[in-house]
Formats: sequence, structure tokens, C-alpha cells
Amino acid sequence: MDLETSPLALPFPDMPSIEGVTLRVARAGYKTWDRADLTFAELAEGTALAGVFTRNVCCSSEVEIGREQVKQGRARALVVNAGNSNAFTGYRGREAVDQIMSQVADALGCEKGEVLVSSTGVIGVPLPKDKAREGIAKVLEAQPASWEQAATTIGTTDTFAKGATVSAMLGDTRVSLNGIIKGSGMIAPDMATMLGYVFTDATVEPGFLQQCLSKANAGTFNCITVDGDTSTSDSLLLAATGRSKAPEISDLRSKAAKDFTAALKGVMLDLAHQVVRDGEGATKFVEVAVTGAASDADAHKVAMAIANSPLVKTAVAGEDPNWGRVVMAVGKSGAKADRDLLSIRFGDILVAEKGWVAESYSEEAGAAYMKQPELVIGVDMGLGKGQATAWTCDLTNRYIEINADYRS
Amino acid sequence: MDLETSPLALPFPDMPSIEGVTLRVARAGYKTWDRADLTFAELAEGTALAGVFTRNVCCSSEVEIGREQVKQGRARALVVNAGNSNAFTGYRGREAVDQIMSQVADALGCEKGEVLVSSTGVIGVPLPKDKAREGIAKVLEAQPASWEQAATTIGTTDTFAKGATVSAMLGDTRVSLNGIIKGSGMIAPDMATMLGYVFTDATVEPGFLQQCLSKANAGTFNCITVDGDTSTSDSLLLAATGRSKAPEISDLRSKAAKDFTAALKGVMLDLAHQVVRDGEGATKFVEVAVTGAASDADAHKVAMAIANSPLVKTAVAGEDPNWGRVVMAVGKSGAKADRDLLSIRFGDILVAEKGWVAESYSEEAGAAYMKQPELVIGVDMGLGKGQATAWTCDLTNRYIEINADYRS
Repeated sequence: MDLETSPLALPFPDMPSIEGVTLRVARAGYKTWDRADLTFAELAEGTALAGVFTRNVCCSSEVEIGREQVKQGRARALVVNAGNSNAFTGYRGREAVDQIMSQVADALGCEKGEVLVSSTGVIGVPLPKDKAREGIAKVLEAQPASWEQAATTIGTTDTFAKGATVSAMLGDTRVSLNGIIKGSGMIAPDMATMLGYVFTDATVEPGFLQQCLSKANAGTFNCITVDGDTSTSDSLLLAATGRSKAPEISDLRSKAAKDFTAALKGVMLDLAHQVVRDGEGATKFVEVAVTGAASDADAHKVAMAIANSPLVKTAVAGEDPNWGRVVMAVGKSGAKADRDLLSIRFGDILVAEKGWVAESYSEEAGAAYMKQPELVIGVDMGLGKGQATAWTCDLTNRYIEINADYRS
Repeated sequence: MDLETSPLALPFPDMPSIEGVTLRVARAGYKTWDRADLTFAELAEGTALAGVFTRNVCCSSEVEIGREQVKQGRARALVVNAGNSNAFTGYRGREAVDQIMSQVADALGCEKGEVLVSSTGVIGVPLPKDKAREGIAKVLEAQPASWEQAATTIGTTDTFAKGATVSAMLGDTRVSLNGIIKGSGMIAPDMATMLGYVFTDATVEPGFLQQCLSKANAGTFNCITVDGDTSTSDSLLLAATGRSKAPEISDLRSKAAKDFTAALKGVMLDLAHQVVRDGEGATKFVEVAVTGAASDADAHKVAMAIANSPLVKTAVAGEDPNWGRVVMAVGKSGAKADRDLLSIRFGDILVAEKGWVAESYSEEAGAAYMKQPELVIGVDMGLGKGQATAWTCDLTNRYIEINADYRS
């Protein structure tokens, strides 16, 4: 299936080099695509590593092995296969990952455990070991690639290359954080699972790096949804090469730690939004902002219930200011709610309050607002101080077409 | 929007009369429809009542009041408004329900609390009291209606009238159970929320009647899903007129109680399946049968995760035997699972086992199976004795069209 570029696509940003990171791409030929499909990031010695992975218990071998590897906190190389997820392939899948780890470790003279492998694409087909071996041999000899080339190569059903960059001052030294990501459904295990990679030249103690990543993940990737399905391969890796002159960050309460965490969250939020913008069939980018909940956890439940509701998402697709469906989603979320204290806004327009449509609301104003490509649905629960934000896209015929299309 | 009859529609069954139940319909004119939209069931004195309602906390006034009424366990009349859900309308909605209750109670000479009101249709518009008053006056004078007329009149976006009947021998006396239902999404709060009514001439103590209903509900209506959204109006009422000669059922462990409960479950399962068959845009009826789970509760989680997954449902729409998406849904369900112990069947075809595709499986056989209108997805978890079954339909472009269509 040919995929047109998402109407919500953003241009690829200018991204600086990160000292200690060398990118290369090659064609392993996992599919019949006439394009590079294997991405390799070589990392300087001493690079600290952190990672978060899908919670799906039927995960791929890459995820199982990766979970163990990030506990060691060190990496020398990342390998990304596009076109085959290697998920649900039993021992054959584990063998293919092990072979890649050994081949790269031999070439770099590092430990096998320092080579991280990710794969997305078709499920249930073991990654072909011969193609992987030849692909790795080629990529080790390849010329360095740009961030945009790497972002393009990790993609599968993505309709645009996704990258983000932020810099932060740690003391008087500037560090950079670059991220690339692929994914166009929160999950579509055939061809669109989310894989993300963030690189920085900052020096960060591995245990602290993992804390930063998990914290930033809670407010970014854990707050987006395209279809509510949970991938078997989702992975987000963060590598800190330590090649800047900035002093090592190891104290969670230091100013440097706070500045680094804020910068990391900035890159990750940018990447997370780009995944939603490339959501399968998306024509609208929707922010769901919940305030006044009994707790932040309740606010997150409400925001995700709205963001995942097929009826809210089809109403957005139809540019219908259907606030009744928002009320429904609030009520089914499991969060504490009082129908008669709720208020709902579309952008700045107060739509409903005190258990009914607002007196000032006009359907014309609501309908005009919904025609915009970027929307904010605001819900105040009227109960407390809990708040949370989620991001999603609309649910269109194109999502059905993409996902009902027979695998080929 | 004109709705074509579902390709999965069933003919309306022959249903016997139930002594103590008189049905009538009339046109209140809640919408511009040229059809009856108000249904009235008069119940004999002494009728026992039980009910289950949506768990959505932003529910309609009808549901709030109904929850209190079923605690009394007695009813003399059921009133069903079609075309306006009266949900999220604050005190105005409560006033309309109260007026209907008073008007009917005055006419029948019963308590207000013995008149149950349900409404489905547009959300956020208070039920017009003048139309309700005239409609009730008309329906009280109307000629008795048939079960099929009542089933048609309670419908909104339903594409066929839904009814079911079962009889049971209690000792040497035959009792009948008749049910009618409306609903074509598990929920579509604009126009398609589920309302169901079951009537029997058996004599059942109200507290026991409620236990029977809740028990039967757990294995029937709580196991179906069209879109995973939860209505603000869902209600299922069970009225036992006690006009048969069968002795009263009050002992949960008696043979009569077991036979009655089995018959009730039969009627409810039939009705539940019909709701799925009229699922918005449905072209496939799918049974998801989970066995071998660590517990029945885990099996239910897995079955519902599969039945609610947009990616499984779009694959079914595309007639794609995409077992990888079934693995994904198992893994995200939250139930205990071991990827390498799972086995998956499409009908009688073993598709995957031991962590990979089955040796005997051919894609051609899987693809041929998926072309049928009624499918069984079987998952054995390989862990224990827990089992559960869920029923759903596919997710098609037509669902999007129906729900993205601007309210009018």
C-alpha cells in the first residue's frame, strides 16, 4: 500500500552532531523494499544507557534481551532492523538477535551485552539470519549517515521522518540531545510499532539516566495513543556518550540534573507528538487537557479514556463538536467524577458546565472550531487539583483501510 | 442517514404472549421520524422487578432513578422513549422523568416508584415534557401492540428488530421468558445505547430475581463489545408477573431456580448476540473463546482485550488471518500469559503454538476461513483451567461513517 504523507507532518529539523555517536545505514533486504532497512549507531566507549520497553507480556526477543541489557547501563552499539519485528518467533528469533550481538561485538571488540538490537515489521516471521549477517557486514563498512537518513531507515509505515533536538546548559557547558523515532500507530504490530532513540553528549551516571528516562516517559510517551493497542516491540533507548565537557550528573536534586531532565522531556515530547501526527489515517492532532480531578492519576485516566474513545475520535474525524461523547468517556474512565460539576471546553469555547450545555455555547461556534487541524479538548472535573494531558489523533476511514489491508 | 439492514440480521422470532404483560406503542414525536417512538409495558399487580444498569458514572437521570427503583423490587409499568437519551441534561432531565412517572402512576393507580422510565437517543437535550405528556396520554389509550412492534419502537439506529423467547418447565408447569432489546453499538450515546427488557410469567421473589439477572448478565451482556465505549444509559430490566401456575422460586439451590436461571441466560445470550449482529457497520460476528487461563477472570480479560482491539477488528474486516494481532492483544490484556505456551485457533484450524506459527498451518487455509461471516477465534493460554467467551464484530469503514456523521 502506498502511504501519502500525513497532513500533520512536520519538516525534519536541523540536528547537530553528537560527539561519540556515529550513524550508518545499509540494506539487509528484509523486505522487497528498494531502500536501506538496517540502522547502526556506534557509541563511544563508556556510553551510559537507559531504556523503557513495552509492558506487553507477549513481547519480542529483542525486548526481553534489551530489558536485561539496560540493567547493565552501558552500550557500544544500537542496531535497528526495519521490516520484520521478529516477534512471536520462539527460539529462532532469539538466535537471530544473538547472532547480531556477537557479530557486532566481535567487530567493535566489546561485550555482546553492549549491543542493543530492535526490530519492527511483520510479526511471526523469524528474522532471516543470512540477511542479517550480510546486512551487518555492509553497515559496518558504510559511510556515516545523517540523522535524517537514520530516522528514515528505522521507519516502516511512517509517512515522514521524525527527529527532535534540544540543547541545555549544564553549568557553563552546552550539551545536546538528539532523538529519532518511528511509529505511526501507538502500535500496529505488523508494520508500525514505536522505536525511539535519544542520544546526548552529556555525562550521566547510568542509574540516574534510567530515572530521568522513566520520569520523562511518564509525561510523554505514556500520554499518547493512536488506537489503544499495545505493541509487542515498543522500545525507547537513551544513550549518553559523556563526550561533552560538562561534569557528570549523578545527583538527582542538582540544578544540572533538573536542567537535563527538562531538556530530555522536551525532546521526548516533541518526538511523541510527531508519532501522533503520523498516526495511521490521522487528519487531526488532539490535545486532551484534564484539570480539577481528585488526583493526577485520576486526571490521567480521564484524559486517556477520552483520547482512546472510538466515538470521540470518530466525532473529531467528522468535525462534530459532540461533547456528549466526551461526557460518556469521562464517565467510563473509572476516575471519580460528578456529572453536575464537569465543565468541557473546545479550545477557548465553554461547551458544557453544571450538568448541561453552557448558556453561552452555540453549536455554530463549536462546529467552526472543530474544522481546525489542531484541537484542544479541555475537561475540568470540578473536584480537586489533579491534572494531566494526553495527545491523540482522530479515527478515520484511512485507519481502517491501512489496517484491514491484507498483509503482503 | 439511512441505515441498511445488517448483513448479520436474524428474523424476528414467534413470541408467545406473557400473562400479565400488555404492550402498547404511540408516537410522541421526539424526533421528526414518522414512526412510533414511545413504548409502554403494563405489568400485572405484584410483578417482581430486577435490573442492571451502566457503570458509567455520568449516567442519565433515568438510570439514577432506576437504580433506586429496582431496590424496591416491584413494578407496574415500563416506559421507553426513543430518539432522546435525556442524558447530561441536569435538573431538566430529572423533571421530565418525574412527570412521566406521575402521569402513569395516576392512570394506573400505583406508586410513582413502580413506573420505570428509559430513554435513548440524542444526548444533552432535555426530554421535551409537552411531547412526553401527550405521548403518554396517547399510549395509555392505544391498542395492544405485538412484541415485534415494541422491539421496533424501542430501536433508534438499530437496523433490525431484536427479540428472543425461551420456555422452561418449573416442576410440571411451563413458564415463558420473552426479551426485546435495542442497541447497535455497545454504545453510541447519540442514538444507539443498549436498552433491554425481559418478561416472564414465572413467580420469583424480587431479591432472588435480581441475583438471577446479575448472574446471567455476567456471562452475556458483560461479554459483548462493539466499540468498548460504555453508555450513559445502558439498562436491562427483568419483570416477573407471577401469572403462571408455577410455584414461587425463592431458593437459589432448588432445581426450579437452576432451570429458570438457565432459561434466563438463554434469552439474554440470544439478545446479546443480536446486539453484536447489529453492531454499527458490522459484517462479521466473532466469538472469542479463551481456555487454559490462570483463572476465569484472567480468561475474561484476555477475551475482552481481543474483542476490543481495533487492530484485531480491522484485520477481521479485511479477512486477514492476522494471528500476530491476537498475540498482541493477549499480551496487553493484563492477564498472566506466557508467549511460548499460547496456542491460537481460527475455527478448527491450529494457527500458532509453542511461541510460533503451527507447522501444520497454511496461510491459504487461514485466509479461506476468514471469509466466513461467523468466526471463532480460540486462544488456549496453556496455564490453568480458567475460561471465558466474548462476542464482538469487525471494525469497518461503515462504523466510522456512521459515527463521524454530523448529528442532525
